[in-house]
Amino acid sequence: MWSLFLLFLLSLLSYLFTDELIPKLDHLFINAGMFGIDLCKANKNKIPEAVGVISGCVFLITCFMFIPIVFGYDLMDREHFPHNEFAELLAALLSICCMLLLGFADDVLDLRWRYKLLLPTIASLPLLVVYYVNFNSTTFVIPIPLRHWLGTSIDIGFLYYIYMGMLAVFCTNAINILAGINGLEVGQSVVIALSIVIFNIIEISGDQHKAHTFSLHILIPYLATTLALLKHNWYPSKVFVGDTFCYVSGMTFAVVGILSHFSKTVLLFFLPQIINFVYSVPQLFHFIPCPRHRLPKYSAETDLLYPSRTIIVKKDMLFISKLTIKFASLFRLVDITEDSESIMMNNMTLINLFLIKCGPMSEVRLTISLLIFQACCSCIAFLIRYPMASYFYDK
Amino acid sequence: MWSLFLLFLLSLLSYLFTDELIPKLDHLFINAGMFGIDLCKANKNKIPEAVGVISGCVFLITCFMFIPIVFGYDLMDREHFPHNEFAELLAALLSICCMLLLGFADDVLDLRWRYKLLLPTIASLPLLVVYYVNFNSTTFVIPIPLRHWLGTSIDIGFLYYIYMGMLAVFCTNAINILAGINGLEVGQSVVIALSIVIFNIIEISGDQHKAHTFSLHILIPYLATTLALLKHNWYPSKVFVGDTFCYVSGMTFAVVGILSHFSKTVLLFFLPQIINFVYSVPQLFHFIPCPRHRLPKYSAETDLLYPSRTIIVKKDMLFISKLTIKFASLFRLVDITEDSESIMMNNMTLINLFLIKCGPMSEVRLTISLLIFQACCSCIAFLIRYPMASYFYDK
Repeated sequence: MWSLFLLFLLSLLSYLFTDELIPKLDHLFINAGMFGIDLCKANKNKIPEAVGVISGCVFLITCFMFIPIVFGYDLMDREHFPHNEFAELLAALLSICCMLLLGFADDVLDLRWRYKLLLPTIASLPLLVVYYVNFNSTTFVIPIPLRHWLGTSIDIGFLYYIYMGMLAVFCTNAINILAGINGLEVGQSVVIALSIVIFNIIEISGDQHKAHTFSLHILIPYLATTLALLKHNWYPSKVFVGDTFCYVSGMTFAVVGILSHFSKTVLLFFLPQIINFVYSVPQLFHFIPCPRHRLPKYSAETDLLYPSRTIIVKKDMLFISKLTIKFASLFRLVDITEDSESIMMNNMTLINLFLIKCGPMSEVRLTISLLIFQACCSCIAFLIRYPMASYFYDK
Repeated sequence: MWSLFLLFLLSLLSYLFTDELIPKLDHLFINAGMFGIDLCKANKNKIPEAVGVISGCVFLITCFMFIPIVFGYDLMDREHFPHNEFAELLAALLSICCMLLLGFADDVLDLRWRYKLLLPTIASLPLLVVYYVNFNSTTFVIPIPLRHWLGTSIDIGFLYYIYMGMLAVFCTNAINILAGINGLEVGQSVVIALSIVIFNIIEISGDQHKAHTFSLHILIPYLATTLALLKHNWYPSKVFVGDTFCYVSGMTFAVVGILSHFSKTVLLFFLPQIINFVYSVPQLFHFIPCPRHRLPKYSAETDLLYPSRTIIVKKDMLFISKLTIKFASLFRLVDITEDSESIMMNNMTLINLFLIKCGPMSEVRLTISLLIFQACCSCIAFLIRYPMASYFYDK
């Protein structure tokens, strides 16, 4: 327990350090040409981009410095040192470090989409190997209603590793596509991290004590550095976080989910990201034209955000496009205006959906609304995980 | 043994892959504004900078993919899996990955000198922890002639960890300052890596079998990717390698030296770098004025390189500057021209020293000369390590 206390103290220092470092280094990013213009503001200031690399590095360094503390007690007795747990922590940090590197390279070099899918797969390799060595449990427990047909559990073998690799790819990209307004990427990551931390604290006295402690060891420094980043990224943003941050966050959640064996619970906390992903599918797979940016449209006159739109030329429409539009309008998920030649439809992101349902609003209100939605989804996730799970699984 | 064969095959593939990837990605670097002009050429083409990040990433990926092969046999028998060796490999890769990240960040953001010293120290933390856990042998064996006074060995305890941290700092920066002409950074790294590989092969049947196999597991993929980089970096360079490459190389050598317990032998292979460092000290510590670039001066007329010079104003001279100049000219280590107010002296680098001693020469000849010197120093290192060491140490 004292190690968690020390971790808390160390994380507090890393919060202060990150908070200090970001404004000190931001001119380096601008000098290096790594800056963007905030499209949702009237002013055209240069805002440093990819600053997530700073919080990511401090996060890693904090974890490094924490190694001797976590294993301090074990170090006294080198004969029985838990090499397997140590290897687990190293593999976790290696995957996160890799993702930080690849994310930063992506921000600097602007890699193609196919690399974005490839990179997290590569970065999760050390993780999968350590999973194979330390656990190699590839069984899914079957929910009670289905056991009649499938048995109590099913061993999916190699497919489980594919699942874990895909989890890393999903987590990293899911955060990346629910983004575009000040503070949203970082804010949602904070809510998810907090949800997992609460889950860990609930479970820490149970039989999976070690797994949940491991998760806390990674998530507490993550939260500390991310909160410092949020302070500078909150509306009006003084820094942008870049793909770097989304990659590191996604990988961190995937890592704790995989190595602490609660990947399905982690996915529950990703509910808004899953909704956003499913809603985005028609544009991501180009059934519906997808512009480079899908973020809401800013009006300097009203200082409000409005849903952004895409134009579909009627004669270019595929069957699947028609089907998508019909289906989406049936459930009132899109806002459509039509003329003889083309259809104007909102870009299919959760952010635009909020603007359609609740009307135009200011950027900061939109961010807060989305974060409240994320928090509500976490509550639903806890409901599913606890009261409802007992109907499906025996405790 | 079959695992070394497979490693060789995999490394061959990674050579081909790196060789293919570098020209494909180089426009990304130029688009991102990461390019330089070759100061030793008449043309002013934009040459991509920090391309070492590509070979570094492929090197890491090769090592990841190699993990299941190295531990393949052990994976059958999970009960007796060598978790400590696995942790060692992970820590090594983590340190290298960190260095790759920090090196690339340095290239992009152009960090200050103090960070350059700090970063390798941070990146070597996981390494030191794994060393503490797995070995914690902090004894130096005393050479025979000194044993009368000091005993057979001396345990320097905590200082040994300082020594290892400093080794990482030294290795990374030593390569970085012996640089500036096409192919030199990469060429010297290849010579050093080859020397260590030869040393490993000589020793592999001895009692340190495991340590030397470990070193080969890291150095063979390193060599493969570095050779591919050398192909594109050789005169006339189509890419520059950046600090990224120097950092990764230095860290790789430090890692194998530390974890395979032959750090003193690694230092022997750094003889030219040590000479260059000692020779550079007066300028690095600013006893003698140090311009931003110390690389040789190119003359487009003759297509030859000449020693570059620094100007020392006589009335600004400190006592230690006078002492340095007197000492250096006594041993004919500098080329000095003097007038009533100032002294013109060559910049104190090994590259300029070569040009003073051998006269102006073409860039490619200068690189080859320096690499031959590096190879000769490796031969001397082997002489010191083998025939001479028996006078100082009992085998």
